Amino acid sequence: MSKVRGKNVDIAGLAQGVLSGDRRSIARMISIAENSLETAHEQMEPVFSKTGQASRIGITGPPGSGKSTLVDALTSLLRKKKLTVGIVAIDPTSPFTGGALLGDRIRMQGIGLDPDVFIRSMATRGSLGGLCAAAGDAADILDASGKDIVITETVGVGQSEVEIARVADTTLVVLCPEAGDAVQTMKAGLMEIADIFVINKADKESSARLTVDIRGMIELKTYDKADWKPPVVETSATQGTGMEKLYELIENHRKYLEHDNRLHNKRVSSAVRKIQDIVISQVEKKAWRENQEEYIRQLGAKVVNGEMTPYAAAGIVFEHIKSNS
Amino acid sequence: MSKVRGKNVDIAGLAQGVLSGDRRSIARMISIAENSLETAHEQMEPVFSKTGQASRIGITGPPGSGKSTLVDALTSLLRKKKLTVGIVAIDPTSPFTGGALLGDRIRMQGIGLDPDVFIRSMATRGSLGGLCAAAGDAADILDASGKDIVITETVGVGQSEVEIARVADTTLVVLCPEAGDAVQTMKAGLMEIADIFVINKADKESSARLTVDIRGMIELKTYDKADWKPPVVETSATQGTGMEKLYELIENHRKYLEHDNRLHNKRVSSAVRKIQDIVISQVEKKAWRENQEEYIRQLGAKVVNGEMTPYAAAGIVFEHIKSNS
Repeated sequence: MSKVRGKNVDIAGLAQGVLSGDRRSIARMISIAENSLETAHEQMEPVFSKTGQASRIGITGPPGSGKSTLVDALTSLLRKKKLTVGIVAIDPTSPFTGGALLGDRIRMQGIGLDPDVFIRSMATRGSLGGLCAAAGDAADILDASGKDIVITETVGVGQSEVEIARVADTTLVVLCPEAGDAVQTMKAGLMEIADIFVINKADKESSARLTVDIRGMIELKTYDKADWKPPVVETSATQGTGMEKLYELIENHRKYLEHDNRLHNKRVSSAVRKIQDIVISQVEKKAWRENQEEYIRQLGAKVVNGEMTPYAAAGIVFEHIKSNS
Repeated sequence: MSKVRGKNVDIAGLAQGVLSGDRRSIARMISIAENSLETAHEQMEPVFSKTGQASRIGITGPPGSGKSTLVDALTSLLRKKKLTVGIVAIDPTSPFTGGALLGDRIRMQGIGLDPDVFIRSMATRGSLGGLCAAAGDAADILDASGKDIVITETVGVGQSEVEIARVADTTLVVLCPEAGDAVQTMKAGLMEIADIFVINKADKESSARLTVDIRGMIELKTYDKADWKPPVVETSATQGTGMEKLYELIENHRKYLEHDNRLHNKRVSSAVRKIQDIVISQVEKKAWRENQEEYIRQLGAKVVNGEMTPYAAAGIVFEHIKSNS
């Protein structure tokens, strides 16, 4: 038994439930991960040691590019191919409405009723470090639960958010003409992380132009013979066109990763990122989240009053972390 | 003398140069800050102790909303009012072109030739924690150098990037109809940080609609009598219209901050954020940036091979940070 937010929880039992694919155990375990697995990670070991079987797909793109619709359509196709699917969807929180902007998810109820599809939404409430770590844990839990494909979907707005989708075997960047042109895609840092570009809503006239622009930008970059050169595919997720082609490209990328230790190297990079997310999340927690607010505001006041440089204050926080861990 | 990247640098002399407003000293000092002030922060004390005189303005918004043009137009107006201006502009880096996407900055040469305007571009290369800390240092240096107004401009894509603009006395969120609708603005987390909304390119028909939408969203939130309710102003930065109105709103917000200790409290929050950025930046450096890459990849490989959970690996990194600092 472990204490999770003051309650006794049988983590080892939950871990066994996750491994047998039990939906309730999966849901509970992801909730525990959202509140930090730190205290429970030892009993989680059976789960972590069973990861690595699923194909991990990351999906990102600017707001309004149709990511959720694409995840819907792709999941339907994967189900036709008898593959089981786990989905971690990162939804932005609005402090104005008080909740996650979950409108997009309602549409998903069709696939949500399928027992071989598990969908979990997470909100970007609070610390980004904590969210990155929790999103990685959720993907690991779904992987260990036996899902063939684990999809992580996040809005491509900013380096940290984009990195969540990058921690995958294959990363799709979804673009549409209405959600910004190619230069803006570069500005959002989306060009560098794409294994496959998806130009969505390809029934719109301007899609062809965007496809040409993105292809032009890919040509600007120098590729070695052994490099993967990101292909561009046009889809209409609402009409379901282009999905077979997209699936074929995902398969091609998976086969590419199978050679020269590429999949292993990519997964080591993902694991490194995950370790870093956990470290940052723990630093945030030890230094200014758990009952440290007053303490750090006092240091902030000293900086404002010119009694201390911010670097000296950071040094004190650093010592504080060391002595409290 | 301090060693900065292997060279002896007279930081104390530079600090005096900054305080006297010497442009070369300011430029040098900001460059040192970009490579981390950690080793030099003690000699920087005279600079940090002279901050707090400038009014700090943060400007953010989605890519394509016309932030740079607005900074141009606002700076011209501030100069007419005989105010000196420092600008820190965060430009996204493209790994495809290899450099910062500085196209926007070229336009600024007009105001760039004015000796009472200092413009510094920084690229989002490498670590986000490091960039946040460096951007804060640059604003502090410009503040200490005697500039009346210090503007920090950053593209509003993602929580971390947006936070850079939030570390200001007054934060402007710049929107335009082409760069996404009101819901997408909420999704990007821009609603909560705005002290003033600027609807730019107000010559376009759809601006009026966006203004109505944003006002509607502001009405959804509950404000106490003492709260600042963000006003919305329409501008056309290219034509210079609406700038006097914007200036008036910035002045109103500054007056609002002068009561009930609000400015002090806001600056303490900014200082807290700055301390946090420095701590995160130092953790990143100690744990995986400075010659630690091989070490952390070995831990990553152990996680991938199932020999260790990512939490156990994070624990080892944490111990490593503690014993190396």
